[in-house]
Amino acid sequence: MRIKKVLKLMRINHLDNLIVTDYKSIYYLTYILIKPNERFLGLLLKKNGEVYLINNELFPIDSNDIEIIWYNDKENPIEKLKPLLNENETLGIDKFMYSHFLLDMMRLKIAKFYVNGSIYVDSVRMIKSEDEIKKMRVASKINDDAMDILVKSLRIGITELECEEELKKIYKNLGGDDFSFTPIIAFGANGANPHHENTHTKLEVSQSIILDIGCMKNGYASDMTRTIFSGSKPHEHFQKVYDIVKKANEMAIEGVCENITFSQVDKKARDYITESGYGKYFTHRTGHSCGLEDHEYGDVSSVNEDIIQVGQCFSIEPGIYLPEEEIGVRIEDLVIITEDGCEVLNKYTKEIIVVPDEQ
Amino acid sequence: MRIKKVLKLMRINHLDNLIVTDYKSIYYLTYILIKPNERFLGLLLKKNGEVYLINNELFPIDSNDIEIIWYNDKENPIEKLKPLLNENETLGIDKFMYSHFLLDMMRLKIAKFYVNGSIYVDSVRMIKSEDEIKKMRVASKINDDAMDILVKSLRIGITELECEEELKKIYKNLGGDDFSFTPIIAFGANGANPHHENTHTKLEVSQSIILDIGCMKNGYASDMTRTIFSGSKPHEHFQKVYDIVKKANEMAIEGVCENITFSQVDKKARDYITESGYGKYFTHRTGHSCGLEDHEYGDVSSVNEDIIQVGQCFSIEPGIYLPEEEIGVRIEDLVIITEDGCEVLNKYTKEIIVVPDEQ
Repeated sequence: MRIKKVLKLMRINHLDNLIVTDYKSIYYLTYILIKPNERFLGLLLKKNGEVYLINNELFPIDSNDIEIIWYNDKENPIEKLKPLLNENETLGIDKFMYSHFLLDMMRLKIAKFYVNGSIYVDSVRMIKSEDEIKKMRVASKINDDAMDILVKSLRIGITELECEEELKKIYKNLGGDDFSFTPIIAFGANGANPHHENTHTKLEVSQSIILDIGCMKNGYASDMTRTIFSGSKPHEHFQKVYDIVKKANEMAIEGVCENITFSQVDKKARDYITESGYGKYFTHRTGHSCGLEDHEYGDVSSVNEDIIQVGQCFSIEPGIYLPEEEIGVRIEDLVIITEDGCEVLNKYTKEIIVVPDEQ
Repeated sequence: MRIKKVLKLMRINHLDNLIVTDYKSIYYLTYILIKPNERFLGLLLKKNGEVYLINNELFPIDSNDIEIIWYNDKENPIEKLKPLLNENETLGIDKFMYSHFLLDMMRLKIAKFYVNGSIYVDSVRMIKSEDEIKKMRVASKINDDAMDILVKSLRIGITELECEEELKKIYKNLGGDDFSFTPIIAFGANGANPHHENTHTKLEVSQSIILDIGCMKNGYASDMTRTIFSGSKPHEHFQKVYDIVKKANEMAIEGVCENITFSQVDKKARDYITESGYGKYFTHRTGHSCGLEDHEYGDVSSVNEDIIQVGQCFSIEPGIYLPEEEIGVRIEDLVIITEDGCEVLNKYTKEIIVVPDEQ
């Protein structure tokens, strides 16, 4: 069914052939899960409806539905592709395929033109089915519960890395499968770097704490950020910045619906932060799509003019980062687009939380 | 210095320009460490000696040595590359660069020919300096100690995933930085799949246990495999297979030296296993290079005719896998090529170990 949707898009757009190499997309289209690492794994879709999977013998699978073309480590998988293609046709390429495979395709002249063909898979994968939405809800429910337990477990003196370990246990106890990405746990000044990697920094009194966390469950990802404060009343400037980010998050969520562009959602959050005088400190896009992976195709950014559709799932995560003042605030929720706006998957409070000194 | 070696190889091979996008290779060449994830990060080397780093503004860095070309999320990094190149020249491409960047380079005609240029970096990176060898020794010493502690901590009833968690703690206590790869901990029948992923399977009496583990330390990786036995004397067939694999490992190590090919090392291990009647059950290459990453360029395989050189580091890991009999045995050491053979980095015993029933 999913393959048929991709084939339909290929035909509409006059793409003769498409080779899908992203293993999550192959799983999405076939329910066959193989992680080939550096080896070639390719699902070939031809506009006439033929489908082949080129797979290394190291990864044994059974399939009644799809013809498997096997190769071993002594063979070149691209040579196995060649007889399945017409050298005068166009071949769509997966955006993240390794370049050396593409160079080899060109050397062996397996097609006449090569184009980025990921969009035909991505645009199908972006629209979540009812079953997928159910799984996304479950993953985010675990994430809400994990945030609650994590916040309550914080104490002065704990390190970011210890916090990460604690979170791993929390997910496990809640039935989560694994992190959907390495969590960002950033104390004080570290929070002013939106791409912070966790360190042995210890939590002190009167620090902001960014918790950007997510888990996998049944193959689907959750992702949420909250910013809290340790051990005393937040100082005035932090409180001000917090309120602006929270309002930006809420305004973007309130305004999101089908048939507007992703850039309009970004604008909603960005305009409010800019009007409040912090535009240049909101240094990243407003969000990203989420599903089988934490980061999927479809940015909520100022340059994405794609139209939002029912069933899409993405994050809304404005932030303000002031390195000089050691302030970083980000508030993130996942939303799923519905016919009358959106469903917010995260229910965990956005009111500012202060971790008591003696906790 | 490292960049100069790459430039020299480029000149010898008449390559005009090379774009390095593997972030570990960029670190190797510049000591600048940026993990750009899906964003473009490229180190451009020109045969005249000019060097540029194309980097997203999201990853702030300082460099006195290298000119940084900045771009932001609204800009196309490939357009920033174009003015630095001559459209009539050849551009070497990093083998693992995402194809969509290469397609965009071709669309913008930033070069006339595109070739896989990774070899010029990889062949420099393969030869470890004295300083790198010291770091590899330290990482493998931690791995030896971790194996000892892990083996002693095994008990009937523990699951593979619990064992993985235990190992994480062991590395931490020993000063290791992180896994260099997700460890393979395979009990009984699971060991017959060389690419097994850890499960909730519990350890039972009279099972083989494959422990394929490694950690990072100071940026360098370790990697070792041992196969042990639980709770009773190994049965006869397991013992026989074990002895063959151990002998194959030892023979390959004994025969390894500079100026032979990687395929000759593979042959040494494979021939012995084949002569012993198990050739078709040794289903993978004999090893892989190791350094800044657990898996680096340079397979120890039957098709790699490259000449082994002093300073190279790779694994020697023959194995035999008999799914029907639930037997899997693999024994792996890292070796560094010296002027008179090799130095084996792993000292942990290869004598068969039986975990006592009551441990």
